[in-house]
Amino acid sequence: MTRVVVVGGGFGGLQAARGLGRTGIDVTVVDRQNYFFFQPLAYQVATGSLSSVEVAAPLRQVLRRDPRTHVVLGEVTGFDLDRRIVVVEHLPNGEERRELAYDRLVVAGGSHYSYFGHDDWGSYAPELKSLDGALVVRDRILSAFEAAELEQDAAARAAFLTFVVIGAGPTGVEMAGQIAELGNQVLHREYRSADTRQARVLLVEALPRVLSTYPPRLSESAASQLRSLGVTVRVSSPVVEIGDGYVVLQPPDQEPERIAARTAIWAAGVEASPLAGQLAAAAGLETDRAGRVQVEPDLTLPGHPEVIALGDMVTVRGLALPGIAPVAMQEGRHAARSIRSGERTPFVYRNKGELATIGRRRAVGVVSGVPVTGFPAWILWLGVHIAYLVGFQNRVLVLTRWAFAYLVHGRGARVIHGR
Amino acid sequence: MTRVVVVGGGFGGLQAARGLGRTGIDVTVVDRQNYFFFQPLAYQVATGSLSSVEVAAPLRQVLRRDPRTHVVLGEVTGFDLDRRIVVVEHLPNGEERRELAYDRLVVAGGSHYSYFGHDDWGSYAPELKSLDGALVVRDRILSAFEAAELEQDAAARAAFLTFVVIGAGPTGVEMAGQIAELGNQVLHREYRSADTRQARVLLVEALPRVLSTYPPRLSESAASQLRSLGVTVRVSSPVVEIGDGYVVLQPPDQEPERIAARTAIWAAGVEASPLAGQLAAAAGLETDRAGRVQVEPDLTLPGHPEVIALGDMVTVRGLALPGIAPVAMQEGRHAARSIRSGERTPFVYRNKGELATIGRRRAVGVVSGVPVTGFPAWILWLGVHIAYLVGFQNRVLVLTRWAFAYLVHGRGARVIHGR
Repeated sequence: MTRVVVVGGGFGGLQAARGLGRTGIDVTVVDRQNYFFFQPLAYQVATGSLSSVEVAAPLRQVLRRDPRTHVVLGEVTGFDLDRRIVVVEHLPNGEERRELAYDRLVVAGGSHYSYFGHDDWGSYAPELKSLDGALVVRDRILSAFEAAELEQDAAARAAFLTFVVIGAGPTGVEMAGQIAELGNQVLHREYRSADTRQARVLLVEALPRVLSTYPPRLSESAASQLRSLGVTVRVSSPVVEIGDGYVVLQPPDQEPERIAARTAIWAAGVEASPLAGQLAAAAGLETDRAGRVQVEPDLTLPGHPEVIALGDMVTVRGLALPGIAPVAMQEGRHAARSIRSGERTPFVYRNKGELATIGRRRAVGVVSGVPVTGFPAWILWLGVHIAYLVGFQNRVLVLTRWAFAYLVHGRGARVIHGR
Repeated sequence: MTRVVVVGGGFGGLQAARGLGRTGIDVTVVDRQNYFFFQPLAYQVATGSLSSVEVAAPLRQVLRRDPRTHVVLGEVTGFDLDRRIVVVEHLPNGEERRELAYDRLVVAGGSHYSYFGHDDWGSYAPELKSLDGALVVRDRILSAFEAAELEQDAAARAAFLTFVVIGAGPTGVEMAGQIAELGNQVLHREYRSADTRQARVLLVEALPRVLSTYPPRLSESAASQLRSLGVTVRVSSPVVEIGDGYVVLQPPDQEPERIAARTAIWAAGVEASPLAGQLAAAAGLETDRAGRVQVEPDLTLPGHPEVIALGDMVTVRGLALPGIAPVAMQEGRHAARSIRSGERTPFVYRNKGELATIGRRRAVGVVSGVPVTGFPAWILWLGVHIAYLVGFQNRVLVLTRWAFAYLVHGRGARVIHGR
């Protein structure tokens, strides 16, 4: 009887687990959270377009039809590859530590945004990679507009109406566009003293262009679509300091620039899950600068053919695939297939493309190698995101919210929880 | 130019504000939260049936079409009735204190559950009156099932599967029914080790019957419908102690009974908002045992015809109307009418009835004086709650969730946020 432990219930882990369901194999999925989180829509939670639970699906519900699949809520804190054991801590029943034995192990811990060693920046610029982070960002954005409404000092009000988004990958681009739309198209009808259309949104990027993994032509298009929404795009502008009410940029060969902004949002510095480091340490391997562990072309850990690692936390023989959901999902399915068959075939990524939306009827992307922009890209983006959302109910609810947002420029999920 | 300040954006305050919209009157609504919260569905948030934002509507969105209506986020901490000023603190822009001047004042602070002087019980038995409370309860319930799944000791597991709901008013009755359904009809397909159908739900009430404000025949019906769901109903059983993992009941003339339960939920001891006490102190009046202030038949504060107080926090010449939404809403509309007209007519409550649901196709209530039970009551309950939800979008979303819950026994909003 094969026992498989899958660490991580994200895009990759869930595909691996589902691919092993109803095969007679015992599967145990371990995650710190009881839900799968659709991170590509985190920014919509952060701007009040969607509710948190609409982009999350309970892991047990997703896996309920696989009778030999178990879910364990807890934090994986170590691997013993010789004894073939995963160590889990912080269990919900108060148990300190439990060891899960496996015959085959799949580790899919994903990644998070890192503050480049400045962890103190986190309190000023919350991250947008987790669901809890997205809710913190939502509270900050909505509270800033509330503060601006009450503030009588012009400079202080301007700082409340200034939003700095750090990192111009897809999440940062989408976030900046949404804040601009929120101020321009939604909130201005609801505030009486503050003119929310005066809100200044800055998208800040250390590299010379936005969406740096996309073809340069699409970066250009994205930047110009962002500008048409009123977003100030600042490329080649590394952030060197963040404090209470300000962000400092340091463009090369220029004076540092201090921006008075009450709200900063962090969407930069992708770093592998600590699980990559723990796995590497257990196997006597090293991680790279981004904390990733290297795997073989078949995604197994060097020297440990019984262990598969995948997603954002690995490189395949030093080559990093894009840190996007389709890669992790394909790798998860590959892991399930190779465990079922016992064969060690190399993983081949089928690049169907990627898409980033900028706002209403605005997007850019590459689909099957063909660049797309504007309205057609936006329609494709909508279709792909609805199709890949987990749970039929969530699809219906999200479509309903989007229809309302499109038709009446509303944003219904604007609750400040943290007051 | 009349300036009206409305304190509280609940059922009563919102009706008062809306009734004064587009009349040329300047209205300022002050609330600690940026949203209206539909408390009658709090228990559905707590059991993962609905998302928090589906039972909440941003106050600004609700009031956006009233151009002279302002919203101020902050906590009212005092009244100066001579100077006609409301003191607001904890403003979102960091301002310590602001004074709002009024010509007419409406205070609608509502009520909360009190722990009868045992505030330390709050950490063991979170309350179900606020949205934040409902989310805490949700985390506790879902975590208890997760813990039961992992726990190997039989007694410890039983304690994780024991849920004590304290207070058998409508919220407590509805809550107990929903937890029973969650264990019996929803979760049992998703857990592999714990049998969630073994979950024990106790509904505990100090008074001799459940739903004590309803006709005795309906209390009987509610209790028997609860029992048919597997709920243990314990009336005449005051709670005398709550601690980590246990609740102690003290039925009269019997030994105290200690129940091992990891989850306790508080829905008892309705107490007026502290605003009632502040208002009474400012006017030189006393509050009653439940902290309520007494108002005149026209809802004005004795000696202060420019001040109206309403809802759960008042008695009308010592008479307490039921602490339910329709009373507050009718009083809010009455307040708006009397401010618009300048007339001081007595408030008359038109009792259309009340309804409490117990579970799928189970409910009790009185509609226009006629008692209803079972399926017809349940259908009426559904219709009334959809009709009174605030926001067309929320109605569509909640109906969608209910349809899914009904058809597939699902509960989609089962995210544990607090881990």
